[in-house]
Amino acid sequence: MRYTLKITITLKPGILDPEAHAIRHALTNLGFRTEDLKTARIFLITLDTPDEGEARAQAEKMCERLLANPVIHDHTVEVMG
Amino acid sequence: MRYTLKITITLKPGILDPEAHAIRHALTNLGFRTEDLKTARIFLITLDTPDEGEARAQAEKMCERLLANPVIHDHTVEVMG
Repeated sequence: MRYTLKITITLKPGILDPEAHAIRHALTNLGFRTEDLKTARIFLITLDTPDEGEARAQAEKMCERLLANPVIHDHTVEVMG
Repeated sequence: MRYTLKITITLKPGILDPEAHAIRHALTNLGFRTEDLKTARIFLITLDTPDEGEARAQAEKMCERLLANPVIHDHTVEVMG
């Protein structure tokens, strides 16, 4: 069966986010005042697996092997259906 | 009051996503079989505005001015609280 998984990659608390800093700076220059800005990446991955548990397990392995860097990133895996 | 808004930036349907293509290719090389892969970006922005409507309106303007390219991107704005 086909399952679509939403993988969210965020920076761990305390890890510097230069991209967020640059975007906040650019927004300020455009006249927008922001109190905070965080960035995250989403991967929507469709897998063909026998069951949902296997889809989730594969997505976790993909995070460990390629999508997330465990030193600086947190990740969550959500089954969308 | 402080509102945190979740801005999701996705590529419009039909727009090529070379990053997704590269990641899918890398996953294949690692032995993972994927049926589809899409990428998206999230910005979590905290604003101090008098009300939720104003926060949402400002976030929309930020998308138009900086965060999204209307030619290739779709965006959604969600008030998180």
